[in-house]
Amino acid sequence: MKTAVTEMFGIEAPIFAFSHCRDVVAAVSKAGGMGVLGAAWMTPEHLEQELKWIDDHVDGKPYGVDMVFAAKAEAIDIGTNPRNVVGKQQYDFINGLMSEDGVPELPTSEVEGWYREYAENLSFTQEKSEALLDVAMKFPIKFMVSALGLAPKHIIDRMHAANIKVGALIGSAKHARKQVEAGVDVIIAQGSEAGGHVGTVSSMVLWPEVVDAIAPVPVLAAGGVGRGRQMAAAMALGAQGVWTGSVWLGTVESELNPDLREVLYDASSEDALITYGYTGKPCRSLRSKFTDAWARDDAPAPLGVPYQSILSGEPFRRAERAHRKDWMTYAARPDRRPTQGTDDREGSGLRHGVGILRYDGTP
Amino acid sequence: MKTAVTEMFGIEAPIFAFSHCRDVVAAVSKAGGMGVLGAAWMTPEHLEQELKWIDDHVDGKPYGVDMVFAAKAEAIDIGTNPRNVVGKQQYDFINGLMSEDGVPELPTSEVEGWYREYAENLSFTQEKSEALLDVAMKFPIKFMVSALGLAPKHIIDRMHAANIKVGALIGSAKHARKQVEAGVDVIIAQGSEAGGHVGTVSSMVLWPEVVDAIAPVPVLAAGGVGRGRQMAAAMALGAQGVWTGSVWLGTVESELNPDLREVLYDASSEDALITYGYTGKPCRSLRSKFTDAWARDDAPAPLGVPYQSILSGEPFRRAERAHRKDWMTYAARPDRRPTQGTDDREGSGLRHGVGILRYDGTP
Repeated sequence: MKTAVTEMFGIEAPIFAFSHCRDVVAAVSKAGGMGVLGAAWMTPEHLEQELKWIDDHVDGKPYGVDMVFAAKAEAIDIGTNPRNVVGKQQYDFINGLMSEDGVPELPTSEVEGWYREYAENLSFTQEKSEALLDVAMKFPIKFMVSALGLAPKHIIDRMHAANIKVGALIGSAKHARKQVEAGVDVIIAQGSEAGGHVGTVSSMVLWPEVVDAIAPVPVLAAGGVGRGRQMAAAMALGAQGVWTGSVWLGTVESELNPDLREVLYDASSEDALITYGYTGKPCRSLRSKFTDAWARDDAPAPLGVPYQSILSGEPFRRAERAHRKDWMTYAARPDRRPTQGTDDREGSGLRHGVGILRYDGTP
Repeated sequence: MKTAVTEMFGIEAPIFAFSHCRDVVAAVSKAGGMGVLGAAWMTPEHLEQELKWIDDHVDGKPYGVDMVFAAKAEAIDIGTNPRNVVGKQQYDFINGLMSEDGVPELPTSEVEGWYREYAENLSFTQEKSEALLDVAMKFPIKFMVSALGLAPKHIIDRMHAANIKVGALIGSAKHARKQVEAGVDVIIAQGSEAGGHVGTVSSMVLWPEVVDAIAPVPVLAAGGVGRGRQMAAAMALGAQGVWTGSVWLGTVESELNPDLREVLYDASSEDALITYGYTGKPCRSLRSKFTDAWARDDAPAPLGVPYQSILSGEPFRRAERAHRKDWMTYAARPDRRPTQGTDDREGSGLRHGVGILRYDGTP
């Protein structure tokens, strides 16, 4: 099918796949869509490794990167005791609950080195973002997406000079207008049902509102799209394509560890709640004892960005090490609709993933 | 167009309009859809008056009623001081804030009589519901919808014996299955973006999940449907029709007072937040000082159903009397997308209302 974005990128189907997993990115691009690698948390060395692998596996098809440009971000000094940088009250609260519930602690010696790296990766400074962008531009990327907020003007200009289209995720019509005024080429309108950071307006309401607000700039519909029927709905609502994320987490190739993949498989649509406990911003995540903890009356206020994310790292690692699925969470929206005898786990594999999304007009 | 529900009811378009306003109910039925009158808050006398008017104005076209069957509801004894029945701490909190903000109090003498009637109307006892149903069955209603929870078996049997189809609003696939097991004929799957009482799952995710869960029982899509594009999306997602509510509140005929209609017109999609302050249950409502108050750190816990609704009556009346739009709220999801020079206020009139929803395949 042809839409403004298939023409813009020379792709066959207007299906965009956001993933931290290079296999997903390459598979979707090869299948005629567009894979977009989540690069924000990576080191430049890691990003170079992943993009090289992708470039070697897409048969020349286009792909993109997703990054964060946080204008006010400062480098984080984690000092000599990395655990303290994250807020002692919050640290003691969540880790104390886990200890009470029998989740073993991690050895300090092991955590320190990892914490330092984790905190550095979460320092979304301009320097770090530009270093990542320098790496990305060694490769023939076609799409650079700003995951959060406005990218600086010189970045947008640099992309356009290199014939790279710029996209931006937004959760309101107001933010869509601001992005378009800043020169963004493609708006990704993300409804509140999406996994990850979200606004308050759902896809059914947000998508057509944004389409109207910024026409003729093309809109990709994000939030709740996991099947062809939802893609058909997105096109009916005026979108020029879809932006997907959670649906790829269930693939055997995804970045989730096996326990977390089971948590995702077992989750229902009602298990994706908005929590401030994951990152400090409203983030739709799988419900678990971790998210329940931050909803308790006696919970301390979560930290700001990026400190709450740094804080979350150790509990997540504890849960993973102990195989405690009841404490695991992830920024995802489960799309589990067992029907007609199909096995969702099988249906989530990459060999099916692109197929279930492809819109052929008969949803 | 033909779907399972147009066949079921002999209507031309699978557009269902829930409204407390008889004009809306009659206009939609006459236009080839199905108007459904919200009867739960009415007295039997009032309901009879409204249904007689509707029956006189639909040219024999089908219409329905929407009711509440609360199995555990007890009659409310409001005693001699009606203000105290609602919880002194909560009463003092919200009314104190309004006084501080310069909203005049209502005279006790005036409030008492009104409070008594209001509390009685909100007593959703079986006796009251059956008395309303007795009235409704004097008229040739074709559809009886349970707005909240399971209707008792004898009620469903009574409807079926009279060749009246039974519908039910649900917010999760689990509840949809329970309703179908109880014999309900049409499921109204209401996404979390709907105005009024909602669950946590948005339309984009909920509708196809419910369609799959209860096929071949027909599903009406509710929550976020205000335009033909959204109806087209609903059909793509497997619904057999749409259930609409908020879109009719903007009509000049609607039950909203002029100030509240202005509040609705001025609201954006981001102004429809979920509050417990309206009824004690999660209820998507227009943001105002009233909803902000219940989100304050020092707010007392809202009361249960129906006491919080009874409590809300006086603040709403105070705001209305003083023309204080900043304190007004309503259970609604604004659908304001000014575009292409059209005037939304004009577009919301009943003369346009059915037209904007009618799905002609070219959304």
